Amino acid sequence: MMNDRAYALFEEQQKDRGISLSEAKEKLKALKIETPSWGYGDSGTRFKVFQQEGVPRDPFEKMEDASVVHKLTGICPSVAIHIPWDRVDDYGKLKAHAEQLGLAIGAVNPNLFQDDDYKFGSVTNVKAAIRQKATEQLLECVDIAKQTGSKEISLWLADGTNYPGQGDIRKRKNWMYECLAEVYEALDDDMRLLIEYKFFEPAFYHTDLADWGMAYNLAQKLGPKAEVLVDTGHHAQGTNIEHIVAYLLDEKRLGGFHFNSRKYADDDLIAGAHNPYELFLIFSQILDACRDSDPNVRKTAEHISYMLDQCHNLEPKIPAVLRSVMNVQTQFAKALLINFDEVKKAQEDHDVLAAEAAIREAFEIDVKPLLCAVREEMNVPPDPLKAYAESGYAEKILARGKGGASW
Amino acid sequence: MMNDRAYALFEEQQKDRGISLSEAKEKLKALKIETPSWGYGDSGTRFKVFQQEGVPRDPFEKMEDASVVHKLTGICPSVAIHIPWDRVDDYGKLKAHAEQLGLAIGAVNPNLFQDDDYKFGSVTNVKAAIRQKATEQLLECVDIAKQTGSKEISLWLADGTNYPGQGDIRKRKNWMYECLAEVYEALDDDMRLLIEYKFFEPAFYHTDLADWGMAYNLAQKLGPKAEVLVDTGHHAQGTNIEHIVAYLLDEKRLGGFHFNSRKYADDDLIAGAHNPYELFLIFSQILDACRDSDPNVRKTAEHISYMLDQCHNLEPKIPAVLRSVMNVQTQFAKALLINFDEVKKAQEDHDVLAAEAAIREAFEIDVKPLLCAVREEMNVPPDPLKAYAESGYAEKILARGKGGASW
Amino acid sequence: MMNDRAYALFEEQQKDRGISLSEAKEKLKALKIETPSWGYGDSGTRFKVFQQEGVPRDPFEKMEDASVVHKLTGICPSVAIHIPWDRVDDYGKLKAHAEQLGLAIGAVNPNLFQDDDYKFGSVTNVKAAIRQKATEQLLECVDIAKQTGSKEISLWLADGTNYPGQGDIRKRKNWMYECLAEVYEALDDDMRLLIEYKFFEPAFYHTDLADWGMAYNLAQKLGPKAEVLVDTGHHAQGTNIEHIVAYLLDEKRLGGFHFNSRKYADDDLIAGAHNPYELFLIFSQILDACRDSDPNVRKTAEHISYMLDQCHNLEPKIPAVLRSVMNVQTQFAKALLINFDEVKKAQEDHDVLAAEAAIREAFEIDVKPLLCAVREEMNVPPDPLKAYAESGYAEKILARGKGGASW
Amino acid sequence: MMNDRAYALFEEQQKDRGISLSEAKEKLKALKIETPSWGYGDSGTRFKVFQQEGVPRDPFEKMEDASVVHKLTGICPSVAIHIPWDRVDDYGKLKAHAEQLGLAIGAVNPNLFQDDDYKFGSVTNVKAAIRQKATEQLLECVDIAKQTGSKEISLWLADGTNYPGQGDIRKRKNWMYECLAEVYEALDDDMRLLIEYKFFEPAFYHTDLADWGMAYNLAQKLGPKAEVLVDTGHHAQGTNIEHIVAYLLDEKRLGGFHFNSRKYADDDLIAGAHNPYELFLIFSQILDACRDSDPNVRKTAEHISYMLDQCHNLEPKIPAVLRSVMNVQTQFAKALLINFDEVKKAQEDHDVLAAEAAIREAFEIDVKPLLCAVREEMNVPPDPLKAYAESGYAEKILARGKGGASW
Repeated sequence: MMNDRAYALFEEQQKDRGISLSEAKEKLKALKIETPSWGYGDSGTRFKVFQQEGVPRDPFEKMEDASVVHKLTGICPSVAIHIPWDRVDDYGKLKAHAEQLGLAIGAVNPNLFQDDDYKFGSVTNVKAAIRQKATEQLLECVDIAKQTGSKEISLWLADGTNYPGQGDIRKRKNWMYECLAEVYEALDDDMRLLIEYKFFEPAFYHTDLADWGMAYNLAQKLGPKAEVLVDTGHHAQGTNIEHIVAYLLDEKRLGGFHFNSRKYADDDLIAGAHNPYELFLIFSQILDACRDSDPNVRKTAEHISYMLDQCHNLEPKIPAVLRSVMNVQTQFAKALLINFDEVKKAQEDHDVLAAEAAIREAFEIDVKPLLCAVREEMNVPPDPLKAYAESGYAEKILARGKGGASW
Repeated sequence: MMNDRAYALFEEQQKDRGISLSEAKEKLKALKIETPSWGYGDSGTRFKVFQQEGVPRDPFEKMEDASVVHKLTGICPSVAIHIPWDRVDDYGKLKAHAEQLGLAIGAVNPNLFQDDDYKFGSVTNVKAAIRQKATEQLLECVDIAKQTGSKEISLWLADGTNYPGQGDIRKRKNWMYECLAEVYEALDDDMRLLIEYKFFEPAFYHTDLADWGMAYNLAQKLGPKAEVLVDTGHHAQGTNIEHIVAYLLDEKRLGGFHFNSRKYADDDLIAGAHNPYELFLIFSQILDACRDSDPNVRKTAEHISYMLDQCHNLEPKIPAVLRSVMNVQTQFAKALLINFDEVKKAQEDHDVLAAEAAIREAFEIDVKPLLCAVREEMNVPPDPLKAYAESGYAEKILARGKGGASW
Repeated sequence: MMNDRAYALFEEQQKDRGISLSEAKEKLKALKIETPSWGYGDSGTRFKVFQQEGVPRDPFEKMEDASVVHKLTGICPSVAIHIPWDRVDDYGKLKAHAEQLGLAIGAVNPNLFQDDDYKFGSVTNVKAAIRQKATEQLLECVDIAKQTGSKEISLWLADGTNYPGQGDIRKRKNWMYECLAEVYEALDDDMRLLIEYKFFEPAFYHTDLADWGMAYNLAQKLGPKAEVLVDTGHHAQGTNIEHIVAYLLDEKRLGGFHFNSRKYADDDLIAGAHNPYELFLIFSQILDACRDSDPNVRKTAEHISYMLDQCHNLEPKIPAVLRSVMNVQTQFAKALLINFDEVKKAQEDHDVLAAEAAIREAFEIDVKPLLCAVREEMNVPPDPLKAYAESGYAEKILARGKGGASW
Repeated sequence: MMNDRAYALFEEQQKDRGISLSEAKEKLKALKIETPSWGYGDSGTRFKVFQQEGVPRDPFEKMEDASVVHKLTGICPSVAIHIPWDRVDDYGKLKAHAEQLGLAIGAVNPNLFQDDDYKFGSVTNVKAAIRQKATEQLLECVDIAKQTGSKEISLWLADGTNYPGQGDIRKRKNWMYECLAEVYEALDDDMRLLIEYKFFEPAFYHTDLADWGMAYNLAQKLGPKAEVLVDTGHHAQGTNIEHIVAYLLDEKRLGGFHFNSRKYADDDLIAGAHNPYELFLIFSQILDACRDSDPNVRKTAEHISYMLDQCHNLEPKIPAVLRSVMNVQTQFAKALLINFDEVKKAQEDHDVLAAEAAIREAFEIDVKPLLCAVREEMNVPPDPLKAYAESGYAEKILARGKGGASW
């Protein structure tokens, strides 16, 4: 078999490089990537949402699609939900449905940007009553998390302004803190609040939580259960995201990721599709932190929640999610092959070329043999996309018709 | 009267600077800014369109709103329309309605981005049948222009791709040319095709008409009736738009503008609200070209179509349009006060500071006295926004309710 | 006199707007802008430093040039110095020379980027000996500050890397803290450490202090004498600088500014020359904070150190500095004319258009009459640039020849 | 031997994918990458040029270093020169020296940015005498090309302005054309003029040749011997460079590349070090054009001049050049493995995922076995960097000391 020969050669080559595949395999099996319920529904741009046939019509069907992704990859056992998009009468029923499918409910994502009341801000609204309403909606999410067994609230606020003068930036900052302090209090001790930031959109002048510094400072003030969530599409052009990742790891405040890729703004494309090296470098920082002498840095690095947060405007949803998951897995696998001892040695020698080469070498490796081996050991198909194409699921869901869930 | 004293002082100050107000006034009276029918309707981001009460429900009501803007400013006598958004059974009737309101139908803007068939491209679609459909829709727009007395087709294509490999870039380029050549042939001799370009969105990997160079080259190939339209929000960060304007003027290929402002991407905010100096510098290039020794450069500069193209996601539509028009008028007025002889003199002396100061000085002037005087002579209110607030029109249109036209 | 009439009218107009000029004048007289010794010397790009005749040959001559700027503006009484560029044998003598010229020594700026030892980092270098050397150079600067009566160390670190893997980001972060903690200890109680950040350059992959968040977090850890310094040219494209300013004010951690303008990267052009509205909006946030109910926010806003940090690659140095000072003063004056009560009222009403208009209105005012009046009361020339041109100083310094100080 | 097994497996895998290695090998052997004489000298940022021991002291030593790169890679047989940096008394002697080393003189790069006369522009200077001087310097370069057997003039102009008003943009545009038309006339029929553009730096307001559109339009006007040169670091953030490449190929106006990589501005880092996928996508467009039905498109794609244009500020020069060459070769090799028939098929089916996957699949392949095999067949070392380290050349050139050539 060609695959066996490829793996044998791969193993030999890695051994030569001083890399143990058994450890890499363990880490690959332990990797978990949460998929978002809204990733299975219709989405688009402000210009047009093209509807696809077969998108799920309710949270239960979204779970079914997500379970297909998990069955084919083995590494997507939880599903993030959006409230109110995924509001149901009986969360126990949704949880049971998920569990039956081999899934758990993941992060609960409050949506505070589509109610007319939030037009000028939710937790940063100048009107106390609206801030109160927003706080209650956040508390509802904490409650839903408790009902569904979720341990995470993933908070992205669309709050901001479009014009100078529109809002009182400092007051809004303080109002946000007040609301979130109330929410923080409601968290169980084993829950966490993941605070996401964004450079711009939908606010076009100032965004209340505009960058990692604002999210971090807020988390610091709230307490140890609050951490920062990095969405890879939410930065200014040129921003060194892996630097931010390293920084937050060192501060023990990195809680999670929303993966997606972009070339321009928050394009929300398939993770790893554009500039895949960036995703690899993010993982190189995380894996480096897993070797830190400080156990709290290590613990932070090991407890990061990896989630997708994407729009599939043109392509069919389930294979696009599969592809994203596989892209993330691929870059993670490559980063596992970095010889960090070599990197450190070169750093100590001020040997720029050797240090760069030691990182880059791992990126150039084709990890398909490793991933095939891991998938085999996990009893999932070696090529999840092919398996999906052959499964007949895509054809089956066409019966749902057009006009399913969208965001 | 304070206003009279202000104007007297203003006139004296400008005389001292060697600026004749009579010429400035003539140019201010001749300035025309076209407003877009869609600017009066609901718009938003991909996250949410907040509906406003009172937005027009059909093209006829849009004309009514536009006529209010023209009545209050005196400089907005035409209205751009979007097809199919403004499709009506009888364009003669729409034209008559507009004329009764003192308006003309302006540029016809084909919309080739919301039909399901155009999901993967319109005139650049790999399927010949779809390209043919798109061409026919463009020809329909030429026909509508002829029916409504419009002399301009304003073409923005959303065509592009989201991922490497998705499209054959070179073939798409040639298909586009083929379609537009057919459309070009249908134009009357006194019509023009304005070709707009855009850096990105809704396409997130490549946009078929991505920059001025692609639009310009296409216009060159099509012929003298094709010109470039510059939308101020459609460039990469940092792009020197006034340089592009000067360049296109020199090539006699600048046909029009879509004004709006932005801080990040194509934010489509009120024109002149962000970085107003940029708008002033654009006009400084245009007015400089009006003094060129080449009559064809002068003619190009004098025949530019100025149009707004904006979204008013949060603010009420009509006053936002008024404000935009006034911002454009204000920066145009300031640019009229540049002493170009001083600029040229400093340029010849390599006197960087004096050259910069000669341009900047005009920007620092408060042109309210000049605008008040011009408005008085034009029999429009000195403060159009105040006049609108007092007119009762905003209250009157509330009867239209929510859920009017949107894009 | 036209000027008197202009001022009378101006006063009346402002009174009508509810603005008291006496308060504005007091604030304008209290404004201080520090000029940098290196701004008077030669500078350029990596491609070429064009030498100018007459640039100062030593720190003493730099003080002389700076004193001319202060004499002509009345608001530039201190001069920032760079060590080692401004190293002298006897700092008492430099201080005395400055005082004789009516100047004080301002912020001491350690230069940790031109010694060969710092090629791979100064306080973040992997070699302990080099970190120690850098720390000692910082301590030398603290000592120089004490000798010259300066109360500020203004710290910009060029430290960073060009390639992935080149440096251990987390270790470098901790080394930096260790070094600066030692420096912090050496500060007198009335001194402060201003920590500057920069997006990129000269490091092209990661910069150890890359953004406000990293500078702020470091300041938090060091203690109350450490504050953040904002250089207006050190951000990613599109960054909302005034938001950062407001944020740091609310956190009581904004210590100072390096003013300059840019269109692309850290272009270090004349302050306020590009996008002057941004400078105005920065001041609008500061002046708004001066009205905060929290006395500590007010105190922070009132104790900001304003400094220029620019390169005059093409234009003569002294008039370029004058122009920069005047641009800053102009935007500050405009911001003083904001009717903040109107802004707040509109914010409370969610009246986006009125709020934006209340801010923008002040920007559109021509403040020349106000500045003339203030200059007259301060006994400085109404037009500092004209006075400089007529002073003969530019001709006098030509005797210095070419080849003076550069950076 | 592991390498043999790796190659055998590689060949089998590619055969399975329908890729013939014999064709790929031919193309890899035919690939030529020109190295720049200035890449071997000292360079830095405006903050500091760190001098390295052993950099060449004159053009002859630069050739020697370049010959080492060619000996080790087999694909760098020509060297670009910069005038006046590489001005020598006897170009015949320089040519002979190069030839003895197995090299040819490549593109002649006029430097019109370091003479004091060019401070305010060279071919766009308002002074006719300076434009004339610049033209003569360009003609000198044409003459040097003729003397050295070079067939290319590679023109990058630093011309531009720092402030609005500083220059007359339209006049400068026309002056540039006039000068270059004169230079164009001097070209032999088998020579070409490669016109490079740049977004910004050293000019910080407007750059006379700011983008591909301006370079292309100029080339169109000059004639068929003028083509556009793309420097990968000279674009606004986010620009889709491969789109520009495809566009210029379709117009038969793409003449050459300056390779280097960047994260921020024109960082001039090792080619392919940052975002290597971009380099791969550029080659994917070129190789796609090599299959075009239009023989002129094919011819254009096959006659592109590939050159490096980089600064090695921190790392040793020769290995950094080697690494750059190998990075370019690697991405070229990967692009050769794209199954374009699959891509086209997916495009025709509007199968976004399959099209993207067909491109991406090739990027994920580890091409080391292929490169080793090619190098073996070319009689160069399988690992050029290792061979260089073992060659003793780095130690030998230390005798040159510090302070060699720089730019």
